[in-house]
Amino acid sequence: MKTANIGLLGFGNVGGGTYKILTDNKKLIENRIGVSPKIVKILQRNRNKKRLVDANPNLLTEDPDDIINNPDIDIVVEMLGGIEPATSFMLQSMKHKKHVVSANKAAIAANYELLMSTAKENNVEFLFEASVAGGIPVLTAMTNALEANNFVEIMGILNGTTNYILTKMTEEGLPYEEVLKDAQAKGFAEADPTADVEGIDAANKLSILMALAFNKYVAPSDIPTTGISKITSEDIKAASEQNKKIKLIGSASVKNGKFDYSVKPVLLDASHPLAGVSNEFNAVYITGDMVGELMFYGKGAGPLPTGSAVCGDILSIMKKYK
Amino acid sequence: MKTANIGLLGFGNVGGGTYKILTDNKKLIENRIGVSPKIVKILQRNRNKKRLVDANPNLLTEDPDDIINNPDIDIVVEMLGGIEPATSFMLQSMKHKKHVVSANKAAIAANYELLMSTAKENNVEFLFEASVAGGIPVLTAMTNALEANNFVEIMGILNGTTNYILTKMTEEGLPYEEVLKDAQAKGFAEADPTADVEGIDAANKLSILMALAFNKYVAPSDIPTTGISKITSEDIKAASEQNKKIKLIGSASVKNGKFDYSVKPVLLDASHPLAGVSNEFNAVYITGDMVGELMFYGKGAGPLPTGSAVCGDILSIMKKYK
Repeated sequence: MKTANIGLLGFGNVGGGTYKILTDNKKLIENRIGVSPKIVKILQRNRNKKRLVDANPNLLTEDPDDIINNPDIDIVVEMLGGIEPATSFMLQSMKHKKHVVSANKAAIAANYELLMSTAKENNVEFLFEASVAGGIPVLTAMTNALEANNFVEIMGILNGTTNYILTKMTEEGLPYEEVLKDAQAKGFAEADPTADVEGIDAANKLSILMALAFNKYVAPSDIPTTGISKITSEDIKAASEQNKKIKLIGSASVKNGKFDYSVKPVLLDASHPLAGVSNEFNAVYITGDMVGELMFYGKGAGPLPTGSAVCGDILSIMKKYK
Repeated sequence: MKTANIGLLGFGNVGGGTYKILTDNKKLIENRIGVSPKIVKILQRNRNKKRLVDANPNLLTEDPDDIINNPDIDIVVEMLGGIEPATSFMLQSMKHKKHVVSANKAAIAANYELLMSTAKENNVEFLFEASVAGGIPVLTAMTNALEANNFVEIMGILNGTTNYILTKMTEEGLPYEEVLKDAQAKGFAEADPTADVEGIDAANKLSILMALAFNKYVAPSDIPTTGISKITSEDIKAASEQNKKIKLIGSASVKNGKFDYSVKPVLLDASHPLAGVSNEFNAVYITGDMVGELMFYGKGAGPLPTGSAVCGDILSIMKKYK
């Protein structure tokens, strides 16, 4: 059986989840794909941090060049987060003729065109299912099974933290600040929640969705973005009284060649499929000219759901080895 | 640009939808895939039937051999419905080294193992996204993006006719017979509704889902199946009073190697994601060991949604031409 040699850049939550899936489900993957996944190196910059799983210590390195410039590695999986050095590492890997899989929405949204063109020039695959809506296979669906459609509209609940906060405000009638503190205590929100609650994370994901759906790249900073930090208990109550729900929606549509896009809190009818998406779940609602309306729902974060998407991309590359 | 030569077996609703998509979105497909789709022959057995679209009359034939045994055709798309002659036509096409795409759940569920092994022996692709849940790309997701998962459970609203009837019974408090007549008048139910209302159609789809998810083939006739024809207005009312909904659910799960499967009406909590799936919409709810819970929602029937799925399969084969 052929082997796919994989290098992991980053060993945090997503890196740990990916490692666990490739290890625990190795036999299953070999049976389904006919190629064996082998992790040969892992970049772990901070050895003292508590890890989701323990990797074989012989695999660990602190030098990114051991992966990016390692002739034994075919697939580089970038899970560092942040724009740099992640973008540079991905570009260098492509120039060394390695396929790249990434979960890093911020880096991809910031440098989409450069990353795509560099992958094309070097004739390598560049896949990033995990960068939008975690485990939900929406990018793969858009670029494969739905590819005969002109996409008309995309609407998504793209951030689990804000959806969790809005759900708790709605169900328990509590004010924003109190729910945020509780979410931070439970690990659903970060100590600095700005990127989530101000819609920046959702804008990164919307930028990637637009690029794939409409072949139209808009930088996240050019997407009109309003977060949820100004939503009050009174807003929530007023929505409930009209049988509506407030959701943070990233949306983009095209009509007669004109694009319309934003991230903002939206009042949805309770009967809208996105209105029923609660807690930390994500969902993407897509309209294609032929298929009509579709919705994809699932976990938008977490080591294993996100790792599932990363591994889907790795397997898609491995299939071509045969 | 390379050309993919396509033969259509059947020119009813799904055939017409597929023809329309490959014609209307031809430029889009060429741009995205880099290969041009060309329909070279269409089997149309009844020339007098009213058609969704008019095809170039030069393409039409009444002789299936003009497609199955045509050296100019690479991809045969089977959209005849029914077990025979569809199964024989697919097998013969494979033996003539043609890739096969099918929308025909009855034929695939009845002859799954023979069709899969014949495709493998002849080293051709056999894809059938449209056979389950119409336009919803659930089979492609399971066999691609989610492939690193052990699937644990599948639950689906797999039949639009019965979901439409149950929705109207719930929303309007009307008895089964009255709603069925109205559905027949509106074209949502067939003159002989048996296959839909008795769960036979859903059992065909569940058989295909199980084969892909668990690598476990169970003939549709071996799936315990109960339809909706005995559901009364009183049942619906009693469910509503408990804040539950009655849905016709095809479900399959595996635990410690033991499989459990059925098609039957199920009482779902109103908060379950499948409970909000109304009217003619379909949805499939999947649990994977790594990704957790996912739901896919959309139109399970209709010429264009089903044609979108057929075309997704055709494009997936075309991608390999490059």
